[in-house]
Amino acid sequence: MYNPIKPSNAQILNLIKKTWSSPYLAVTSSTYAIFKRKFDYEEVDHTDGIGTKGYYHWKRRTFKNAVIDALAMNLNDLAMVGAIPYKLQNHIVLPKDDTEAVVKIVSFLAKECIKRRIAITGGETSIQDISDGVDISITVSGFIKKRKVNKFKVGDVLIGFPSSGLHSNGLTKVREVFKKEIRKEFTVPTKIYSDTLLPLFKKYDLHGRMHITGGAFTKLKNLLINTDAIITNAHSLKPQPIFYELYKKGVADKDMYRIFNCGIGFVISVGPKNAKAVLAETKGQIIGEIVKGKGKVRIDSMFTNKKIEL
Amino acid sequence: MYNPIKPSNAQILNLIKKTWSSPYLAVTSSTYAIFKRKFDYEEVDHTDGIGTKGYYHWKRRTFKNAVIDALAMNLNDLAMVGAIPYKLQNHIVLPKDDTEAVVKIVSFLAKECIKRRIAITGGETSIQDISDGVDISITVSGFIKKRKVNKFKVGDVLIGFPSSGLHSNGLTKVREVFKKEIRKEFTVPTKIYSDTLLPLFKKYDLHGRMHITGGAFTKLKNLLINTDAIITNAHSLKPQPIFYELYKKGVADKDMYRIFNCGIGFVISVGPKNAKAVLAETKGQIIGEIVKGKGKVRIDSMFTNKKIEL
Repeated sequence: MYNPIKPSNAQILNLIKKTWSSPYLAVTSSTYAIFKRKFDYEEVDHTDGIGTKGYYHWKRRTFKNAVIDALAMNLNDLAMVGAIPYKLQNHIVLPKDDTEAVVKIVSFLAKECIKRRIAITGGETSIQDISDGVDISITVSGFIKKRKVNKFKVGDVLIGFPSSGLHSNGLTKVREVFKKEIRKEFTVPTKIYSDTLLPLFKKYDLHGRMHITGGAFTKLKNLLINTDAIITNAHSLKPQPIFYELYKKGVADKDMYRIFNCGIGFVISVGPKNAKAVLAETKGQIIGEIVKGKGKVRIDSMFTNKKIEL
Repeated sequence: MYNPIKPSNAQILNLIKKTWSSPYLAVTSSTYAIFKRKFDYEEVDHTDGIGTKGYYHWKRRTFKNAVIDALAMNLNDLAMVGAIPYKLQNHIVLPKDDTEAVVKIVSFLAKECIKRRIAITGGETSIQDISDGVDISITVSGFIKKRKVNKFKVGDVLIGFPSSGLHSNGLTKVREVFKKEIRKEFTVPTKIYSDTLLPLFKKYDLHGRMHITGGAFTKLKNLLINTDAIITNAHSLKPQPIFYELYKKGVADKDMYRIFNCGIGFVISVGPKNAKAVLAETKGQIIGEIVKGKGKVRIDSMFTNKKIEL
């Protein structure tokens, strides 16, 4: 519950109130953002933050990008189950009291939420001088009109969607490799795929949907039952130079695919009949296919031309 | 959404699933904890974490206490509006990968949730080597059967409930005063008052309800409109020696009441007719009264016998 006793909190409360003209819920008491839902679907909640990417966002004060990262980490995972986000709570950690930072963060967050009709129902700011970065963790609630199994099927075409770069995972590895160096590429925000995917969900039968984040391509294994995913076109989405640089600085190619998205931020699978239409409507590219197998992900490495198995 | 790809995550998922036999919601898909609510009341969400107290919990590995702190910070605030908690999401930050710590945290959390019929619908663990403490932030959803205004009234008796010590605020000040020293008193868990307060809510007209946390006694000002709170019995709940020690080490008495709970973790106000019954049923003590005024909190300091005004 926001406490408007401090002037910045009153400002924050005003920013948040702008998100309350939601079609999905009605705020019935503004003091504590008490609300009633306006629908009766199944729901799912999701929590995620920006991890150690917050180190770079704090140093470069790229708070808008930090907000997009936090939103993306949640909305993209919710898109995996076709959930439409309708409200959220945030938890902002800052290494020191910094009203300008808090107001910027909440202001960007409110703007992005209004675009997507998400109500901000509350949150907390925590000053932690034991941390050396900003963290924005968000808990987003979404509703599901019609639940769909999430599973790759034999014969499916794998479609990858381009990432914007490192996104919000593997940053601990990045710091290990680049030591104290701070680069613009480290704070590029994660792509929000749910804006593209939710409309696709309505029109096509998307068999498998996976957000490539922590664990990178190993995550695809969750969707493989008696099948393998064969990725032959790992380079087709024109991965950013940063991935090649990480490889050159000593990250093994198998680890590259375990830790980083390597240019592919989201993967879906569809039957061959739907592939063409999905490609025509989006920036997706065919990166491979699903065959009978034992739950393995097999990738033609774009770094070595070796075959990687995860 | 919990990803059971790592063995510890499968273990975590099993712990969480035990919380799903909730009377308030039905989990309809266990893969992502998709659910439907079993009630139609107003609701409120609340997010809070344990702040820099996590520095001490990490050093002393007092994870059970950390979980109680995180729960208390949320449940006590929800108790201010009489909200019955029914589900939560967690976000756990650890300075390094530590499966034992994660399993302990989720295990304690699940146990406490089952007691209170709260379903854990998901969460995230984030390894952040840029932090020097554990943080557990939780987003709890509660429902409200009958909304009640939260306001102190002229003539009300102020009843304070004893704290267990420092609770989860003012720890940055504690570290400033005690430097590198780490004491048992710094990790004593916050009292969970909602277990006492929710039954009281049903039986009595509790006019004002305030959880004494960040901002300490200044928080009472939120509930004062054309009234003052007069606290004449600040010492009546036998505050722990740590508060006197902080004062002796140089924290001014006005700051003591601005930063620390000084032995009083929760304050309610009731009409004189209800006071006796509330005192008989609880560990509460009369600490003062509400008079006509200008929104001030006036305290007879237990440190100096001076009169403090907040």
